[in-house]
Amino acid sequence: MTFIKTPVKGMPEYLPSDMEIREFALRQIKDSYKQFGFSLIETPAIEHIENLTGKQGGENEKLIFRILKRGEKLSRSEGVDDMCDSGLRYDLTVPLARYFSNNMAVLPYPFKALQIGPSWRADKPQKGRFRQFTQCDIDIIGDGSNLAEIELITATSEMLTKLGLEDFVVRVNDRRILKAMAMFCGFNDTLLDDVFIALDKLDKIGSSGVESILLSMDLSKESVEKYMSLFSSGSLYDSCSEYLGNKFNSFLSKDIIDNLEEIIISTRSIISKGRVVFDPTLVRGMSYYTGPIFEIELIDKSSMSLSIAGGGRYDNMIGNYTGKIQAPACGFSIGFERIASLLKENASLIHNNNKSIAFLISENITRKDKLSVFSRAKELRSKEFRVLIAPRLKNLKLQINQLVEQGFYDIYEFSNNGERKIQIKE
Amino acid sequence: MTFIKTPVKGMPEYLPSDMEIREFALRQIKDSYKQFGFSLIETPAIEHIENLTGKQGGENEKLIFRILKRGEKLSRSEGVDDMCDSGLRYDLTVPLARYFSNNMAVLPYPFKALQIGPSWRADKPQKGRFRQFTQCDIDIIGDGSNLAEIELITATSEMLTKLGLEDFVVRVNDRRILKAMAMFCGFNDTLLDDVFIALDKLDKIGSSGVESILLSMDLSKESVEKYMSLFSSGSLYDSCSEYLGNKFNSFLSKDIIDNLEEIIISTRSIISKGRVVFDPTLVRGMSYYTGPIFEIELIDKSSMSLSIAGGGRYDNMIGNYTGKIQAPACGFSIGFERIASLLKENASLIHNNNKSIAFLISENITRKDKLSVFSRAKELRSKEFRVLIAPRLKNLKLQINQLVEQGFYDIYEFSNNGERKIQIKE
Repeated sequence: MTFIKTPVKGMPEYLPSDMEIREFALRQIKDSYKQFGFSLIETPAIEHIENLTGKQGGENEKLIFRILKRGEKLSRSEGVDDMCDSGLRYDLTVPLARYFSNNMAVLPYPFKALQIGPSWRADKPQKGRFRQFTQCDIDIIGDGSNLAEIELITATSEMLTKLGLEDFVVRVNDRRILKAMAMFCGFNDTLLDDVFIALDKLDKIGSSGVESILLSMDLSKESVEKYMSLFSSGSLYDSCSEYLGNKFNSFLSKDIIDNLEEIIISTRSIISKGRVVFDPTLVRGMSYYTGPIFEIELIDKSSMSLSIAGGGRYDNMIGNYTGKIQAPACGFSIGFERIASLLKENASLIHNNNKSIAFLISENITRKDKLSVFSRAKELRSKEFRVLIAPRLKNLKLQINQLVEQGFYDIYEFSNNGERKIQIKE
Repeated sequence: MTFIKTPVKGMPEYLPSDMEIREFALRQIKDSYKQFGFSLIETPAIEHIENLTGKQGGENEKLIFRILKRGEKLSRSEGVDDMCDSGLRYDLTVPLARYFSNNMAVLPYPFKALQIGPSWRADKPQKGRFRQFTQCDIDIIGDGSNLAEIELITATSEMLTKLGLEDFVVRVNDRRILKAMAMFCGFNDTLLDDVFIALDKLDKIGSSGVESILLSMDLSKESVEKYMSLFSSGSLYDSCSEYLGNKFNSFLSKDIIDNLEEIIISTRSIISKGRVVFDPTLVRGMSYYTGPIFEIELIDKSSMSLSIAGGGRYDNMIGNYTGKIQAPACGFSIGFERIASLLKENASLIHNNNKSIAFLISENITRKDKLSVFSRAKELRSKEFRVLIAPRLKNLKLQINQLVEQGFYDIYEFSNNGERKIQIKE
């Protein structure tokens, strides 16, 4: 019989020490969003292949783990393409759209959802990047007002603060502002997506890099220069209305600017840590966004900037998916795996107050003494202690090392010589 | 574009109210086992098809969701059987054996593992039984002493007690006792598995039913009558050594009886609620058990008896799977889905201490007033309140009903007329 020890290619497995961090993060995240009135929901891992390949998933649709039909359905299938009627979800957005349209009648409206669960993508595995990974999405469906954006940004900022990740910047923009600025420079409507893809690279390739991409497109030199002059270096502003002024009024309604300004002012006044800024160069990849967009960057110990959450308003997506139900929606996707690895690097952020005791029992102990150890363990556990009972191994030194690694510093040995506290070397 | 609203056949989705129960149960279970020194681990959903079809999974191997190969591997595959190299796990046992053999070097020994996660079986969907379901297993690998059984039974009993499920019976037996009793009656070794399958039905078909199955097998009438006379009705005993006496001594070492007696006495003396009894008719289906076996039955409100957890010692399985590493092992599988549905029926068992407040904001409110609502919400959230901020809808009555259903009894409305507390009708 063949038995393969290693996991399937690209699949993660988590050791106890990893799990402590992940569990800590999960609880903080859930508790934090719960305080903002979000409800935890769960959708199945397996979705209809039709829903997964509806063309809104972009590149991810190429990365689906497809599940073979079974029994008669399989034998009746015609060719490989017909052999699968379902697949593993590659994100939590498709399942949310389906879940909402299926359960709308019994869900509150507006609906504030928190989803945390695995997704699967048959990506090229890379260091620290797996083919199964935990996603964490918060969404508000049914609130067309900017209360939704304000709650999403505030809740997420407070969640990061609770996790001890306090040095972050919330960058906000609006797809309509992005569009107005491009129209103002005379760019053709049909080229906007490509223009934004180029602008999105500003961080990496700099002003001159973006400019040369734009010049290689079907755009006039004058337009491109006008466009590039709008973005000075740094490009973070306290106020969007001050930055934008009246300049783009022919392409941009004042309401849109006011709306974003209110989001900035409100979130800035509430969040405990972090900065909120307007960033006219923020693009966010997904073309389904229709209004405000936002992204949180964390500054890590080595002053590196890491994108840790991103989202925006996508008022048409539920309608596009379901074909019937129109509902405004706004969401934030949290990089759970990135948070977990940041916490792993900063183990001090994990509060573990459990007092831990280990009782090692020798074979020669009497039944009466054994029972008394059990009842001591019971007493301690009732006082919230973590108590491990284990046989005393021959290689006591190894056993003690392993126990200390697991956080058991108080170790007692019980044998026919009675009880002995084991001294741990520092 | 086709978009299918309903989940894939047999797949569950959980509403916010379901999730509250599941999340409550999950945390209690995790916290409870943590106090007994169990470590949470996680294995991936996808396993090698070779490992899943190693013939130790019994009937479950027919129910695998197989995952199609991709790219070149798929095009090179020869026939349907060669098209899949992985599948979704149908239990947590195969993954545990793989995980342990892969990570042995860095895991403590003995290793106390807690796994909670989804498994998938392409079973015929039935009411309340889904093709994706949460399994919860606790296992101790590397402890050959009865400390393992005692800890497993105690920890599980205390976990049920914490969940408010207090009326339960722990039935224990030992596969070797079961075997000795059959040998004592002159049954042929090769027929034992079939004898036990018949005995396992005692609850359902009664003594005469079991007897007639046995008589239909290749067994003498005398042997069958001798065997049946061993099991009186009820068949629950406080002591296994009293029940067994010296009767089976030629087939059963005294150590085995003493060992089980000690498990019974020890667990009985520690657990806060529930009874521990010896049940000579307890079989447990899986033939991989090698020693003590146990099962917990819960008595529900209508005095129905529900099996809620089962397990035993399986000293050869890790070795059988991995082919190399021999390790004694003992495990308990908890019926998480059954626990969740019991808690759903007894909603009072869920402690939800969160104080909840909803702030409804009208469109005509000034920005200044909005900001002051936000800062009130912040203040309350810092005091552990759950605060929902939402737009005030036109259909206020419906909105209030939905809020009350979600547990928001304190509802305030903010408009240009100021603040108003909404009276909830009882």
